[in-house]
Formats: sequence, C-alpha cells, structure tokens
Amino acid sequence: MAHVHVINANLENPSTDVLYHLGLSYSEAERDEFRAIFGDIKFFVCGGSADRMKTFALKLAETLGIKAPFGYSLSHIGSTSRYTTYKVGPVLIANHGMGMPSISILLHEVTKLLEYAGAHDAIYIRMGTSGGVGVEGGTVVLTSEALNHELRPVHVVPILGKLHERPAVLDAAVTAEIAAICDEISVPYAIGKTLCADDFYEEQGRLDGAICEYTNEEKLAFLQVCHDAGTRNIEMESRLFAAFTHKLNIPAAVVCVTLLNRLEGDQVTKPHSVLEEYDLRPMSVVLAYIKSKLQ
Amino acid sequence: MAHVHVINANLENPSTDVLYHLGLSYSEAERDEFRAIFGDIKFFVCGGSADRMKTFALKLAETLGIKAPFGYSLSHIGSTSRYTTYKVGPVLIANHGMGMPSISILLHEVTKLLEYAGAHDAIYIRMGTSGGVGVEGGTVVLTSEALNHELRPVHVVPILGKLHERPAVLDAAVTAEIAAICDEISVPYAIGKTLCADDFYEEQGRLDGAICEYTNEEKLAFLQVCHDAGTRNIEMESRLFAAFTHKLNIPAAVVCVTLLNRLEGDQVTKPHSVLEEYDLRPMSVVLAYIKSKLQ
Repeated sequence: MAHVHVINANLENPSTDVLYHLGLSYSEAERDEFRAIFGDIKFFVCGGSADRMKTFALKLAETLGIKAPFGYSLSHIGSTSRYTTYKVGPVLIANHGMGMPSISILLHEVTKLLEYAGAHDAIYIRMGTSGGVGVEGGTVVLTSEALNHELRPVHVVPILGKLHERPAVLDAAVTAEIAAICDEISVPYAIGKTLCADDFYEEQGRLDGAICEYTNEEKLAFLQVCHDAGTRNIEMESRLFAAFTHKLNIPAAVVCVTLLNRLEGDQVTKPHSVLEEYDLRPMSVVLAYIKSKLQ
Repeated sequence: MAHVHVINANLENPSTDVLYHLGLSYSEAERDEFRAIFGDIKFFVCGGSADRMKTFALKLAETLGIKAPFGYSLSHIGSTSRYTTYKVGPVLIANHGMGMPSISILLHEVTKLLEYAGAHDAIYIRMGTSGGVGVEGGTVVLTSEALNHELRPVHVVPILGKLHERPAVLDAAVTAEIAAICDEISVPYAIGKTLCADDFYEEQGRLDGAICEYTNEEKLAFLQVCHDAGTRNIEMESRLFAAFTHKLNIPAAVVCVTLLNRLEGDQVTKPHSVLEEYDLRPMSVVLAYIKSKLQ
C-alpha cells in the first residue's frame, strides 16, 4: 500500500508498529478493526493543555449532537502518560504539551495512526494561547507562516547531523475558511505571521525569567522588528506544526488567541475570568468550523 | 535582596510574580508564608511523565519515612494544567513534559520559586528514559555533557534574535556521588555524553517516524559517529537542563535509563514488565542518593 501522508518506505505494510507515546499499537492482523475505529477521522485537533482538550472534546460532542451511550461517559484513548487523546465522532483530539519537540512526537504518531487507518482526508488544527504583538489581548491570530528567530518562515531540522530547511507555511484555504467563521460568529481575529520560540522567557524577550540580560528598551526594539516583519503573535509550536504538515501535504491551520499585547507588558495578569473567556475563543471558532464542514 | 541563582535585576524585590505555568504566585506580602512552605527545599527532581513523578513522590515519602497526616493523602501543589508538582519533605518534584522548551519553562519558574523562598542549596536532578548508544538496555547513564547535533557540548539560545552559546555541562561532583550510589545498590551505569535532540524520530535517526528519508546504513553510521564521540545515550531535555543549571551555578545531574540499544534497533518492544523495571532504576538511584545526602 502506498502512503498518502507518510514519507517512509520502512512503513509500507508493517506487521506491527508501536505508537509508543500514544500508548497505542497497530498490527496488520488487526487492520480491519483499526480501520473501523479510526478510519472515519476527518479532523485532528490539538492544543497544549490536557484540561483544555477535554473541555473541547465535551463541547464538540454537544455541538455535533453526539451522545454517550446511556451509562457511559467520554473516556481518553491510549495512555495518558504522555498525551491525553479523545475521539469524538470524526474528530481526533489530543493535547500536545509545550514546545515543538513535544508536538513533533504527537504529530509523527498520530499521522502514522491515521495512515494505517486509511483516514487520508484529515485536516489538522492546532489551537492555543499566545502572546500578541501589536494586537489586543483576546484577538484570535490565524497563522499564515511560522517564523524562526531570524524571522524566516522555515523550520531547520538536524537529520543525521546535517541541517535541513523546511518551509513553515500553513494552508491558506483552510485559514481563509476559518477566518470566515470568525467573521460569522464575531470573534476578533487577525491573519498574520507567528514567531515560534523554543523558550517562553529569554527567546521571547520576556523580562521576568530566571535569566534576563537585556533591557526593556532592547526587548521592545526586538518586538517592534518582529511586528514590522508581520508578526502578530508568539508561541512555541506553530513552526514544527507548519513544517511537518506542509512536508506531508496535510491541510492545516493554527488558531491561537493572544492573552496579552507583548508591546505593553510580559506578565499574564488579567483576571482569571477574562483569560478563561479568551481561552474559549479558539475553541468556539474551531467548533463552528468543524460543524460547518460536516454539514 | 541579591539573587543567588537568578540573573535578572528586574526580579529584585518584586511585589508579585505569577509563576504562570506552575499555577502558583508569589507576593511580597506573603513572603514569610512562602518561605515557611518552600524554604526547606534541598532537591528538585523532575522527569517526563506525571505518572512517574507521582510514583516517585510516593516512594520518596516511604524512603524518608514521611507519613501523610491521618485522614490525608499526598496531593499535587499548584495547577496540573501544564505540570504536576509535589512537595515531599525537602524535595520538590515535578514532571517536565517532553523536550527542551517544556523543561525550560519549568526550570525558570521553579528557580524563581526557590529563590523567593530562600532555598539556595537545592540540587537539581532530571531522571528519565533514553535510547542507549552502545550500552545495554537497562543501563543508567549519568550525563557528563549534553551534546547538540554537531556533537558539541553547548546549548545555543536565540535571544532577541541573536545566538548565544552556553556550555551544557553537568556537575561532576554530584554525578560522581550518584555513580557511587549506583555501585552501592548494584545498578548498572555508565558516565558518558548525552546527545540531546528536539525530535524523537528524524533527529535521532529513527527509521519508524512518519518521515524518514535516510537508510538504515546511514543511520547506523551516524550513531557510530555519536558513539565514537563518547555519546552513550540520546534524549530530549539534558542540554537545556545542563546549560540552564550551569549558567545559574546550580549543582545538577541527569540520570536516565536506556530502554534499548539504538545500535540494534529503533522500536521499544521489550515486554512491559521489563520496561517497568528499567523505569524504576533511575528512581531507585535518586531515592538512595537523596536518602544518603539527608543522613
């Protein structure tokens, strides 16, 4: 069987594959069962925190009118030791933890899972929180390209000791469809570039890390350079997510709300209730998007 | 108050500091209470999975003879949305998730916490699992230096768009003490270099990722080059951990068991019971080490 979204000749017709960090495994002997369980998946939605993804899974079930059988409730699939994963109708849901390495492992294993299941049409969406750059707190930023520290839209992967560059771009068509949903449900949004960092403090120019050897002026100058280059938010997963999905020709989008405007400060000090409402915005957008696509 | 293990003039006498990802906050007004709670900490022990760290916390309580008050049981502190954190006697325990960005956030926030608490003597230990390079599965590797993809013991941090190199070395004295404990309790170990990657599949030369564009021969040649350079295992957190603790003059060690010998294969296929026993080895070593230091 030729692969659709996997580039790895070693995985053609594997007899078994342990998806170690998901706590699931595939075997050729159980292929039909595997396809029956996962073959209908049309969306893979991920986000940082396990709590948020459980909330999303429950809201999605409500949105799609999927009821748990009497006497049952939604339960994670696989192991929860590394990620927490749910399946609600045609949507696979998982938390990806924090940072590109963490989301990378999840993407490799989920993509193999979907491939073995014959679920070749899935759209991948990352939703999350971010620091805004020149946009108001509460704005949902839809990522056009994810930038590295040089503000270039590439992800550099060292493979066997040599550096390879991969374009870190998202799917413009999916992004435009999601923007239309934002308009429809009146969620404030911007389409823009996302600076993706490997660190929350120093690499993002925050002044409140355990290490900080630059001034507020230097930080603001850096953020202004980012803004001038089209950066509208900063987070920690979009670049790997964009490069991976682009490389494998998987339609994908990144939908992150900004918790604050980094041009105005570093600490997330808004009242919990306000942050909670912000947190729900990407969720509302993605729920409405999935509903619209399934109609 | 001058900082001992924090380099950030902005944090001198802060009135408040939200340790956002821990779900804890510090305020000057509650400083005495904060010190009463956290001031006695002598060790910070972290590892990837939340389950494993809870097991460690429970075993540590047993080892140190710390009983929960009648009618109570061990409970996490702060939020569990990002990390799960415990305090058992003079030991702070947390899971760091997967990858350097994830452990980075934890280290910044825990280090600020300990600084505010006046706990200046804490030894940091990361324990975890890894792929072995030329050592048998089950070997506990104590990291001397953590290597980047060029096999250099440095961590490169982009700060405000410019690259900074930090030495990624661990504390030789702490490592030697832990090696002596391994001898004492008869756990097979090696002191060696650790290759630290941002990815589990391609960057580590695995053949079973969703993307693999090299051959088994090329992979083995790469692993042999790593081995020749002194690499004994590969994991995903040690380099940031080493660079951060070295920069802040915090004594630290990395104690990781190898689940397999990567020169022989990629998939973790050993029976669950064997892997569980391997998993317990770093734990046993760290428990015995902490006990010996507190006597």
